[in-house]
Amino acid sequence: MDLVTGRQQYVQYLNDFKSILGELYVFTNEEVLNNYAHDETENLHFLPDIVIKPSTAEELSAVMKICNQHKIPVTPRGAGTGLSGGALPHLGGVLVSFERMTGIDIDERNLQVTVEPGVITENLQNAVKEKGLFYPPDPSSRGSCFIGGNIAENSGGPKAVKYGVVKDYVINLQVVLPTGDIIWTGANVLKNSTGYNLTQLMVGSEGTLGLVTKIVLKLLPHPKFDLLMLVPFNNLEKAGEAVSAIFRAGFTPSALELVEIDALKIVSTFVDSSVVPVTDEMEAHLIVEVDGNNMDVLMQEMEAISELLLQFDCGEIFFADDAQQKAELWKLRRRVAEAVKLDGYTIEEDTVVPRAELPKLIRGVKELGKEYNFKVVCYGHAGDGNLHIRIKKEGNIYSLHNPNVIPALKALFTLVKKLGGTISGEHGIGLIQKEYMDIVFNHTQLEIMRGIKKTFDPNNILNSGKIFD
Amino acid sequence: MDLVTGRQQYVQYLNDFKSILGELYVFTNEEVLNNYAHDETENLHFLPDIVIKPSTAEELSAVMKICNQHKIPVTPRGAGTGLSGGALPHLGGVLVSFERMTGIDIDERNLQVTVEPGVITENLQNAVKEKGLFYPPDPSSRGSCFIGGNIAENSGGPKAVKYGVVKDYVINLQVVLPTGDIIWTGANVLKNSTGYNLTQLMVGSEGTLGLVTKIVLKLLPHPKFDLLMLVPFNNLEKAGEAVSAIFRAGFTPSALELVEIDALKIVSTFVDSSVVPVTDEMEAHLIVEVDGNNMDVLMQEMEAISELLLQFDCGEIFFADDAQQKAELWKLRRRVAEAVKLDGYTIEEDTVVPRAELPKLIRGVKELGKEYNFKVVCYGHAGDGNLHIRIKKEGNIYSLHNPNVIPALKALFTLVKKLGGTISGEHGIGLIQKEYMDIVFNHTQLEIMRGIKKTFDPNNILNSGKIFD
Repeated sequence: MDLVTGRQQYVQYLNDFKSILGELYVFTNEEVLNNYAHDETENLHFLPDIVIKPSTAEELSAVMKICNQHKIPVTPRGAGTGLSGGALPHLGGVLVSFERMTGIDIDERNLQVTVEPGVITENLQNAVKEKGLFYPPDPSSRGSCFIGGNIAENSGGPKAVKYGVVKDYVINLQVVLPTGDIIWTGANVLKNSTGYNLTQLMVGSEGTLGLVTKIVLKLLPHPKFDLLMLVPFNNLEKAGEAVSAIFRAGFTPSALELVEIDALKIVSTFVDSSVVPVTDEMEAHLIVEVDGNNMDVLMQEMEAISELLLQFDCGEIFFADDAQQKAELWKLRRRVAEAVKLDGYTIEEDTVVPRAELPKLIRGVKELGKEYNFKVVCYGHAGDGNLHIRIKKEGNIYSLHNPNVIPALKALFTLVKKLGGTISGEHGIGLIQKEYMDIVFNHTQLEIMRGIKKTFDPNNILNSGKIFD
Repeated sequence: MDLVTGRQQYVQYLNDFKSILGELYVFTNEEVLNNYAHDETENLHFLPDIVIKPSTAEELSAVMKICNQHKIPVTPRGAGTGLSGGALPHLGGVLVSFERMTGIDIDERNLQVTVEPGVITENLQNAVKEKGLFYPPDPSSRGSCFIGGNIAENSGGPKAVKYGVVKDYVINLQVVLPTGDIIWTGANVLKNSTGYNLTQLMVGSEGTLGLVTKIVLKLLPHPKFDLLMLVPFNNLEKAGEAVSAIFRAGFTPSALELVEIDALKIVSTFVDSSVVPVTDEMEAHLIVEVDGNNMDVLMQEMEAISELLLQFDCGEIFFADDAQQKAELWKLRRRVAEAVKLDGYTIEEDTVVPRAELPKLIRGVKELGKEYNFKVVCYGHAGDGNLHIRIKKEGNIYSLHNPNVIPALKALFTLVKKLGGTISGEHGIGLIQKEYMDIVFNHTQLEIMRGIKKTFDPNNILNSGKIFD
């Protein structure tokens, strides 16, 4: 890497940036820079040298041409809710914030929407819902995260188990390449066998291949009804087994979440909720949702799933009776990560395995906790085999290269790989997981990824040092 | 390109190939070579120099190392049912047939299947159906095409409108790279944000980036019931408008096909069927299927769709009453391409547009037919906006570079692009469409695709000259 860093060196380009973007949208004062120095990843902090806020692809293109010519590092940033450090400007340089790009253009005739990267995911969902349409991917941070960041990380959320993740909805992207060229990756169509799938290559590439400036998503008709229940288990592994059994019996819930009891207790206190009755014997809860257009069918489905779960020694099932109870349950689930982090569980992992291997993963995690003397809580999208694991240990484990943490994580990812899984299901690799990539990929695979990176970004200026070195 | 061609030059490697694969699986006699000289694309014919039939990734890897070292062109081939010439060995060299790689390994616990590329798609569907599971993508050629070819072309078929295309089911691939290295592209998981999505890059890359030797697919529970109806229209464009209206009303049929009357007449004669009553006023039919697990709900849905279609001046709706009638209707639909081809409509296009633009595309196609003095029939997966267009003209239009055809196709693709669509929805670009790629992609986009190709295949030996030169 031969990138220019150090603010003083950029002074010569500031006027160029200001003439492109306008004085108001180029920032170098420390207070602003500080706002863009962190995301939700542990306690990491890296100051950018310049923050810019473009409003169009053309403006961004002009900036990128300068950065590419002078090898200035560039970091794209959504709302800063990421959990793998993808938006951290760890090399300094220019940070691109998309907060001014907030257009939403719904195409009701084709059940599509064209959206700009700075739109908050929940705002997008609400806008299309008003037209009876449905954009399912709903990360826990949907109230604050940007859709652009969701594209970068290929986000999931609870609905993924039935409806898929972000990649399943993206059909076309406008991208400003590191060279400043502007391209579209595909066409606004539901099927496409015309050249390589650049759209899918861009989704989940964590802002290392290009800067997404327009996103075309397919939409679904919004389902009319949903039903929600909360199911306690006295045995965590049994809860994991029940997850797999639901699918093998032919059901496809619209959400199937698992929350370990410690996490539930912490979040219940955190949001001051008593909606979930908790006893000492309980080890975990499943949250099960079904959705569709026929209430009778949903009731039958819920009943059949309940009966099935009884075979796995579940406790008394709590049915959320109305919209308010549903909302409260979902609020609990969505705020688990925030609550347990504040409780000292600072490191969050995002492991994913084939669904039926979940009990083995849970058991393995608990054994690793004992071996490495960590407290561990598990929760996540069990229906997808996507388990979030939070680690707590006395002393400072915030640091990126803490010697107490690395061997434990290596053991965890080795187990995950052995179970047919991988490191990250929806958070990405970013800055903090890249040193573990060689556990799941060999030299050839990583060299191919590096070759692709070089094709898009010959000067290695864009989000350099993320995913791999 | 600096590839070695001409059989005499390969004689020196024949013994190496034979020692890797066994004498029985290396072919150079003209009769065998002839069998692999064509696919279903127009009347094109190119002899390979050597045909090999590996049984494992390791054998293929050893062969590829020799081919890569000596720059011998290699063409992968499924069942030869392709419609864009992707499997044609137009540079001679080594043709790899996957017909010996036919393993199917169903993982009922995880609703996944690992399958080898030489498995016939319908055999795969039947094997998983026996376990109550469902692999939806079903190209018309499913009775003979290989799943490996489906991966290469990102195939679709009638069910794609509800269930998506091949790419939506592939979660992991074992690939022999042109260099001979063997990699897996991902993991056996439903969500994955770990590095670039090499899996999706491989799907639809038409055998230009690597040779797929194992395929991990996700499966669904098989729906219990389906209902099928055939709806005649006196106006082709109205039929197109009705397609869009069905989705806008909130329905998602499991198939929504359009067949123009000329095509239906030809195929009815071809398969000697009178199941569809045809009158002189009719211009097109829609085939509408719904599926699910509750028959009452399906009946209601079919009724509601029928009522909606009456608003578009449809004729008397024919409901397929039993399994035999359904099978006959589907047989008609599946054999349209074959029938119209034999009737002289030799060139098939595979255009795709946003669904609501279908009437404009249909109108445009008919106008182009008049302008360029072609007979044209349309049929295809209207629910996806994917329209197959067959062209017939007196005189020889088989040839790849017929001056009568090129301007008409350029005009067609320019229209498609203008409507937000693209050249190919499910057949691929292969050999015969590559000269039109610059209508839908600019220089930058094509250079990125070439860069990706070079990353995977530095010596440009694998299916070279397909998709782009």
